[in-house]
Amino acid sequence: MRIFYSNDISGNIGRLDDEESRHVVKVLRMGIGDQIQVVDGAGNYYTAEITNPSHKGCEFRIIEKQEEVKKGFRLSIAIAPTKNMDRLEWFVEKATEIGVDAIVPIECKNSERKVLKTERLVKKAVSAMKQSQKASLPIINELTEIAEVLKAQFNGEKYIAHCYDMPKDNLKDIYKVGGNVLILIGPEGDFTPEEVEEAAKNGFKPVNLSSNRLRTETAGIVACCAINLINGC
Amino acid sequence: MRIFYSNDISGNIGRLDDEESRHVVKVLRMGIGDQIQVVDGAGNYYTAEITNPSHKGCEFRIIEKQEEVKKGFRLSIAIAPTKNMDRLEWFVEKATEIGVDAIVPIECKNSERKVLKTERLVKKAVSAMKQSQKASLPIINELTEIAEVLKAQFNGEKYIAHCYDMPKDNLKDIYKVGGNVLILIGPEGDFTPEEVEEAAKNGFKPVNLSSNRLRTETAGIVACCAINLINGC
Repeated sequence: MRIFYSNDISGNIGRLDDEESRHVVKVLRMGIGDQIQVVDGAGNYYTAEITNPSHKGCEFRIIEKQEEVKKGFRLSIAIAPTKNMDRLEWFVEKATEIGVDAIVPIECKNSERKVLKTERLVKKAVSAMKQSQKASLPIINELTEIAEVLKAQFNGEKYIAHCYDMPKDNLKDIYKVGGNVLILIGPEGDFTPEEVEEAAKNGFKPVNLSSNRLRTETAGIVACCAINLINGC
Repeated sequence: MRIFYSNDISGNIGRLDDEESRHVVKVLRMGIGDQIQVVDGAGNYYTAEITNPSHKGCEFRIIEKQEEVKKGFRLSIAIAPTKNMDRLEWFVEKATEIGVDAIVPIECKNSERKVLKTERLVKKAVSAMKQSQKASLPIINELTEIAEVLKAQFNGEKYIAHCYDMPKDNLKDIYKVGGNVLILIGPEGDFTPEEVEEAAKNGFKPVNLSSNRLRTETAGIVACCAINLINGC
């Protein structure tokens, strides 16, 4: 079953964007009265009926709405963008499939990428959400200075995954089922000692994700897997 | 520290292949007496000294050998190759980083790819092994008929991850720390009911990897993460 995404739903009417509309109208050749399945990225599935099959903005009327089953926790990953955009896009795709609620690209001292266009990341997330038949889209923030992320309010556990040789807990031993969690993943050159110190001052606990040496994007995925696995998701 | 790979070591002398030799001799401009770090893919790290800096086959003499810390379990993943080779290559790269001992590409009834060149997969694994500073290379089998994999002897637990609605255990609840394990991951169109039945007859237990609907390569990675996480690796 093909699912369409719309972030333009109000009451019981909605509209698909250009790309989705073209697919419905030009490729699938659907018309007035035909039914489509729509998700809104905010946790809702809809069965809808096409009311205006325009390939520039296909309009629909909602027949039925169903909420996605809610998880008991929120997982946020703050991650330094990789130099190679493919690797970051891959992370976004896989994290969306496996389960993540927010992705915060962070600018660190050792970041190899200081400029980031998030549109392609959002596209990857939309595509992964539809492909895995979910109705929730992770929030993808703009590139944010690490100092800002360290100081931001967060209602839950805060961890930093760095590679320095100092006392650290294993993520799986320290994280408790059902807890909201924010995990910081550094760039290939790691966080600086100052960033690690600043994180500690702001309540971030150092964690080990694995006994293996992982690339940034792999570390992000291992963190997603661990939190979802522990929560039985 | 750059690590080189050689599968041509005998006693205390060895030789790098064309590509590695070119890198040592032409790019790094190393010569007689210079030291290099080598892994053999079989769990050994070597400190070696260059004896013949040929860019076609750089020869070295081993000064010191160190064994990789052994894990207590072996993880084998039998996986249906994806239509898009990038996705399978990505799986091999990430599985090698996270930890896998053998990858068996399987030909199933619903496989989208019935021909597979494994050279590129081995290259990805070598590159990921070096990048993550490991000394063990996963064994990558040639494409094998699922019937053959189902009937093969395996000293450990055997699981099949399918999407049919029937009683299944969660991988994390059924797998016991330290056990050798073989996990079967099906193609996008899933295993056929006959394949699932045949697997059951051969002692494969059905498992759930996740409550999410995952792509083939993502399922493979989630399985790797779960087994490594449970083993504290």
